[in-house]
Amino acid sequence: MKIRVIHGPNLNLLGQREPEIYGSETLTEVDASLAKAAADLGASVICSQHNGEGAIIDAIQDAGRAADGLLLNPGGYTHTSVAIRDAVSAITIPTIEIHLSNTYARESFRHRSLIAGVVKARVLGFGSESYTLGLRGLLKLLKSSS
Amino acid sequence: MKIRVIHGPNLNLLGQREPEIYGSETLTEVDASLAKAAADLGASVICSQHNGEGAIIDAIQDAGRAADGLLLNPGGYTHTSVAIRDAVSAITIPTIEIHLSNTYARESFRHRSLIAGVVKARVLGFGSESYTLGLRGLLKLLKSSS
Amino acid sequence: MKIRVIHGPNLNLLGQREPEIYGSETLTEVDASLAKAAADLGASVICSQHNGEGAIIDAIQDAGRAADGLLLNPGGYTHTSVAIRDAVSAITIPTIEIHLSNTYARESFRHRSLIAGVVKARVLGFGSESYTLGLRGLLKLLKSSS
Amino acid sequence: MKIRVIHGPNLNLLGQREPEIYGSETLTEVDASLAKAAADLGASVICSQHNGEGAIIDAIQDAGRAADGLLLNPGGYTHTSVAIRDAVSAITIPTIEIHLSNTYARESFRHRSLIAGVVKARVLGFGSESYTLGLRGLLKLLKSSS
Amino acid sequence: MKIRVIHGPNLNLLGQREPEIYGSETLTEVDASLAKAAADLGASVICSQHNGEGAIIDAIQDAGRAADGLLLNPGGYTHTSVAIRDAVSAITIPTIEIHLSNTYARESFRHRSLIAGVVKARVLGFGSESYTLGLRGLLKLLKSSS
Amino acid sequence: MKIRVIHGPNLNLLGQREPEIYGSETLTEVDASLAKAAADLGASVICSQHNGEGAIIDAIQDAGRAADGLLLNPGGYTHTSVAIRDAVSAITIPTIEIHLSNTYARESFRHRSLIAGVVKARVLGFGSESYTLGLRGLLKLLKSSS
Amino acid sequence: MKIRVIHGPNLNLLGQREPEIYGSETLTEVDASLAKAAADLGASVICSQHNGEGAIIDAIQDAGRAADGLLLNPGGYTHTSVAIRDAVSAITIPTIEIHLSNTYARESFRHRSLIAGVVKARVLGFGSESYTLGLRGLLKLLKSSS
Amino acid sequence: MKIRVIHGPNLNLLGQREPEIYGSETLTEVDASLAKAAADLGASVICSQHNGEGAIIDAIQDAGRAADGLLLNPGGYTHTSVAIRDAVSAITIPTIEIHLSNTYARESFRHRSLIAGVVKARVLGFGSESYTLGLRGLLKLLKSSS
Amino acid sequence: MKIRVIHGPNLNLLGQREPEIYGSETLTEVDASLAKAAADLGASVICSQHNGEGAIIDAIQDAGRAADGLLLNPGGYTHTSVAIRDAVSAITIPTIEIHLSNTYARESFRHRSLIAGVVKARVLGFGSESYTLGLRGLLKLLKSSS
Amino acid sequence: MKIRVIHGPNLNLLGQREPEIYGSETLTEVDASLAKAAADLGASVICSQHNGEGAIIDAIQDAGRAADGLLLNPGGYTHTSVAIRDAVSAITIPTIEIHLSNTYARESFRHRSLIAGVVKARVLGFGSESYTLGLRGLLKLLKSSS
Amino acid sequence: MKIRVIHGPNLNLLGQREPEIYGSETLTEVDASLAKAAADLGASVICSQHNGEGAIIDAIQDAGRAADGLLLNPGGYTHTSVAIRDAVSAITIPTIEIHLSNTYARESFRHRSLIAGVVKARVLGFGSESYTLGLRGLLKLLKSSS
Amino acid sequence: MKIRVIHGPNLNLLGQREPEIYGSETLTEVDASLAKAAADLGASVICSQHNGEGAIIDAIQDAGRAADGLLLNPGGYTHTSVAIRDAVSAITIPTIEIHLSNTYARESFRHRSLIAGVVKARVLGFGSESYTLGLRGLLKLLKSSS
Repeated sequence: MKIRVIHGPNLNLLGQREPEIYGSETLTEVDASLAKAAADLGASVICSQHNGEGAIIDAIQDAGRAADGLLLNPGGYTHTSVAIRDAVSAITIPTIEIHLSNTYARESFRHRSLIAGVVKARVLGFGSESYTLGLRGLLKLLKSSS
Repeated sequence: MKIRVIHGPNLNLLGQREPEIYGSETLTEVDASLAKAAADLGASVICSQHNGEGAIIDAIQDAGRAADGLLLNPGGYTHTSVAIRDAVSAITIPTIEIHLSNTYARESFRHRSLIAGVVKARVLGFGSESYTLGLRGLLKLLKSSS
Repeated sequence: MKIRVIHGPNLNLLGQREPEIYGSETLTEVDASLAKAAADLGASVICSQHNGEGAIIDAIQDAGRAADGLLLNPGGYTHTSVAIRDAVSAITIPTIEIHLSNTYARESFRHRSLIAGVVKARVLGFGSESYTLGLRGLLKLLKSSS
Repeated sequence: MKIRVIHGPNLNLLGQREPEIYGSETLTEVDASLAKAAADLGASVICSQHNGEGAIIDAIQDAGRAADGLLLNPGGYTHTSVAIRDAVSAITIPTIEIHLSNTYARESFRHRSLIAGVVKARVLGFGSESYTLGLRGLLKLLKSSS
Repeated sequence: MKIRVIHGPNLNLLGQREPEIYGSETLTEVDASLAKAAADLGASVICSQHNGEGAIIDAIQDAGRAADGLLLNPGGYTHTSVAIRDAVSAITIPTIEIHLSNTYARESFRHRSLIAGVVKARVLGFGSESYTLGLRGLLKLLKSSS
Repeated sequence: MKIRVIHGPNLNLLGQREPEIYGSETLTEVDASLAKAAADLGASVICSQHNGEGAIIDAIQDAGRAADGLLLNPGGYTHTSVAIRDAVSAITIPTIEIHLSNTYARESFRHRSLIAGVVKARVLGFGSESYTLGLRGLLKLLKSSS
Repeated sequence: MKIRVIHGPNLNLLGQREPEIYGSETLTEVDASLAKAAADLGASVICSQHNGEGAIIDAIQDAGRAADGLLLNPGGYTHTSVAIRDAVSAITIPTIEIHLSNTYARESFRHRSLIAGVVKARVLGFGSESYTLGLRGLLKLLKSSS
Repeated sequence: MKIRVIHGPNLNLLGQREPEIYGSETLTEVDASLAKAAADLGASVICSQHNGEGAIIDAIQDAGRAADGLLLNPGGYTHTSVAIRDAVSAITIPTIEIHLSNTYARESFRHRSLIAGVVKARVLGFGSESYTLGLRGLLKLLKSSS
Repeated sequence: MKIRVIHGPNLNLLGQREPEIYGSETLTEVDASLAKAAADLGASVICSQHNGEGAIIDAIQDAGRAADGLLLNPGGYTHTSVAIRDAVSAITIPTIEIHLSNTYARESFRHRSLIAGVVKARVLGFGSESYTLGLRGLLKLLKSSS
Repeated sequence: MKIRVIHGPNLNLLGQREPEIYGSETLTEVDASLAKAAADLGASVICSQHNGEGAIIDAIQDAGRAADGLLLNPGGYTHTSVAIRDAVSAITIPTIEIHLSNTYARESFRHRSLIAGVVKARVLGFGSESYTLGLRGLLKLLKSSS
Repeated sequence: MKIRVIHGPNLNLLGQREPEIYGSETLTEVDASLAKAAADLGASVICSQHNGEGAIIDAIQDAGRAADGLLLNPGGYTHTSVAIRDAVSAITIPTIEIHLSNTYARESFRHRSLIAGVVKARVLGFGSESYTLGLRGLLKLLKSSS
Repeated sequence: MKIRVIHGPNLNLLGQREPEIYGSETLTEVDASLAKAAADLGASVICSQHNGEGAIIDAIQDAGRAADGLLLNPGGYTHTSVAIRDAVSAITIPTIEIHLSNTYARESFRHRSLIAGVVKARVLGFGSESYTLGLRGLLKLLKSSS
């Protein structure tokens, strides 16, 4: 199983940016943990981070061609991007939406996700552990439907 | 670690009710799987299901006194109950909100959760696997903060 | 044909409570009239009244197992309960929503029914006659689909 | 008892138009059934259908002068016409609002009725049987208040 | 000066309909008073009443070709008709909006006028005297701009 | 008949301020015209202008004690003052709301009047002629109710 | 191919009414151009204009029986008529919604079309050329689906 | 004078739950203080606490039969329960709404009370003293109306 | 303890104005009762009434310098004044918001209080007794925090 | 005449992505058809596709310098981008907004176009034929204004 | 150049009131700094502070007659006063809106400014430096337009 | 002091694009003026312009690492970008939001700024002078906090 992981805008600052909200682990460490967890579960991950909306759309389309499933943390685009939503709709592999923080315990404009209506499932609020749980759930889904 | 699991209204019908949305596993089977997963992770679970809002509040208060963490699927009360929200706020153990389906891909009145603002984290859309992932995440949180 | 009749909160006060809105007949009299009308139409009714949301959900689930059709007056829960809506969705027998008064000629928060979207049909504003008309309509529906 | 029945816009297409929503009976058949039911109950009906808002207002005013009660299916004007509402307010005979389908299980713009606040009672969702039930209820109301 | 007066839906019932709101004078009496007032002021009026939206649009277009000014009481269409608004916009003579009652002291859906934005001025709440005041004001406007 | 006329904030600038909206007549000229029109109709007027909300409330209370009717142009307070509304409600003489311009053809925040619900009638859009028409209508109302 | 063209309210004033918005061509000229364009494309058109909502519904129902496709410019009814929407839904031939002006560059109440959800396609903003483009597109659709 | 006191959901946790909001006194202590204050004022109180909406409705109906007045703290149901509102409307003794905290200085969903429109008066924000003040006010009201 | 009492706009009319809402006691009588109640509780009151928003702000600032606590009935400014809210925020003595009537049982624009979020507590609906209860509660708060 | 054609996000997937909505033709084929149609009409087209909002703005600015007109399909950015709107406003050549599907028959968040207010005209719902019709209309506009 | 500076309600408390939001400088010190800055730039300032809405309108009208430009900090009236907006519109000298704090980082009711639409420019969030920057910008504007 | 200046989308067109709104100075000239002003104040600026949302985020992150303060004109992204807001939140240097025009005197969708809640201060409406004033204010803030 090949899993694509796409980190949205500002996630490159992980570990430095508002650690009381996002934790002190860096993105490199998160990606390493994910790679290890994937290996343990007989899968592999390819991870990338992008600040641009267009770059994220490119990456999603690429995942649609080359991966079996997608873990997507759309960051701030979660609340504003129909174009990313359309990209997720356009691919046929299952997508899991991931957030580090519980967006519903934050500002009200973070309570609406334009992406949520087209993903398979969502995990949020566990910090970087959200990715690992999403990976496990995604692999389970892929197995049960294969 | 003692984990309380509370299933909200109509979840006793699991396996019979709209299986295209909720799956064909029964609640007894879900509870059994959870118990097994908990045992594997060195924890125990106590599960109960309630149709009444007051009964769920009783159960949450009870969890606050006797358990280390709570997995809560508030069902239809998710969208309408300030009283359950207050109960979750009133206890000091971490609560994880669980849903079988991706509520955001359904009717718009299911897109608002009154509970989401006071839980630690949320898992939704993986069917009954949502509970197992929530359990794993909860145990991880409890370990890291202990 | 076995028809279940469920009266929601405060309907036990019928005949005492605000008679200019709800009429002077008591609930016992309403149930007796319904039983007679049902007998005339070759059917039987089982009636119950409940103040609690959970008790109403229990009764709806019970109807789903034991009756051919349901007459439901959700009272004040009409406007606030997703959990009762889910119970109605979860059963496969047809449900008719009944109200004594014309809720649309009253306060604006009574103009929205969370239940209306999942019932088969609605009768409202005829006082206790609303139940008899609903019973007739329900029996007609059951016959035409059998 | 003389009862006027007014069918709103597009109801002349009954039986041809979207039969999965509106049924396969024609308007002529509905009117014939109503006439028979009225005769059985010792009453008579006069039925007419109109596509224009002004023609419906004329018919309502006419009913106010010549009939004892009114069954009104305002069709698409239900959701947009203050002028028809005013006509119903202006007459002193009781009006019952009728709909073939359960408008609350359809598009959200069909959930608001400008007419509902000024009618005596409402029946909806029983297909053409909605008219017969409305007729029965109306006659009952007329008897109890005479 | 030739002034056109157009009465909207249900105004033919004036004197019979809800006299506590609309007064006891009939439309014929109102038109006679207006004719007299116009004569005193050196002008003439042509009055008509219409229940249909299309008929009112025809009358407005006709006024635009044959009169120097228009007094328009759009009745219930005030709150719902873009088409009548467009007719008023399309003609180049000044239009005064007239209402018998103070619509702002009534139901909230009567607080929005789609017509108000395209008329020259408005008079409302003086009963049938609203027309006479509107006529005076209109003649004044016509004189000052000629 | 003693009529009080109260001009709201910024009306002292009449004739200087945005003449394309408010006309070129000064407030002194308007008051003189009103005094003359009142004399012709066998009445008298007392006029005052105030920029402060409290001063307007004082003047309204004073009118309630000393006058038979009130012409009130609340200016910008029309859209924001519950306190002025309460003052109008508190007095028992009839109040007519006056505006120079058609507020409904301007910015949308001018489309809501907090005062409109408690006045007897409204005249707007005739420039300073709005006052004279309001005076005539008010005297007519006072005569018919005396 | 027989195409019906229905022009809504006030379009009979074309060429006279606000030419800076609607252009200086008359409706007769528009219909003549359309007839010629249709002939060039091997089709024929029947055109009519109506100010009344009911008359437009009659014409749409008529088109449903006698034509292969419909070009509909609902004018001011675009934004307010559920009844016309229902008529378009009731017929089975494809409908194209046409507007002379770009309604989205005008008042905000013109930004909502109740008709748009039930038509096949829309052309707007090209002046009278909107009809010709709509005709071409409609014929293309009819050919590809035959 | 017999006064009923009904404490809503989660108030059994008083003294333990979020003491910075709700104070450190327990519910038993509050009830004891109230009993003493009542005795001083020549009245008696009966107090109960309930987590379920149905149980609160039962208690309100019971108060309607056995007490002279009601102090009601609906807790989280304040903002969501039409059924409790209906129960308060259904009884004829005066009800005073009580809150420990100033709900208007908290989350915005606590700013709407469905109960407020049917109670006689409200006291909120004085901590447990809110009950004593409400008791005093209630006794005063009962005396002045007897 | 020195307590300042500030009565907002139109309260000088107390006893004359709409007695069915506000009672028949005059403001002088209310102030006398308050002075007596204060004396009984070992405190003193200084009372004033103001129609102007600025005068109320002056009085609040003055209270902030010279009193230990404030009873404020902002009258109609309750619903519209950010400036009064800011004045209450700016002073450091506790403020209690007082209303004679239950504003939540009146027009919907009276349901929003801009002041409520910055006061310590609120008493409303007990008529003039609201002030006495507020005074008691305020003195209790002052004692417990001293 | 040189016409620029800009395809927005995800349109590179045309033919593969949700063909029941977007058709089975590829973007290369669409561009070839457009080139041919342009040639037939004596014009030329330059086409490009971009997933990024910034890249689309660059392309629009480029069109503003080098082309006579613009066909723009903003895809998902239609509903969210003020920056693209500003780019369209900033150039002085006419822009036509194009959509393959009828966005008004889809999710409600697709019913608002931020672009519509600044384009000349719009064509939508004809599949890839929308481009050809838009091209024809644009050339017509360019000729009539030259 | 003569510049008028108007400080709105509660600004007389500057330095005492919530210093964490508004800073510790007093209004006298702010005015002195402004006078000095003005002198350095070849201009003079006249400053005043007012708690009443009417007094601020008087001051704005006065500025319109006697000054070349206006710096206005409307304080709490920013969000509620149409009358002050009208006063700003009525004068012809340029107005700059000033705020000490960044109102957009505070309560949501402070995010709407009724004044912003009629001023030339705005400076906010720099504490008392906002005035100096506004003064500089205003002088620059006055010079460039002279 | 090193100050970063970031110009958002379409600002590269400055001087060419809608000069009546944005002025006739080019961006190169603005940057030159800023450099000079900074030098006069003992600081330096680095300026860049970007059409893409991702590129702006990159630039903001870069500023966070290399500069002491940031002047940010987010252009059209002001109203739609949570991702840029997050970038501003993520850096710890102070940010000043700059706009050339007074966005509050333009279309209503420009009245909401997603960025305003996380910046230190805002300057808008002075044309290119907004940048210079923002620079001065920013340097003042940096000095006072160092």
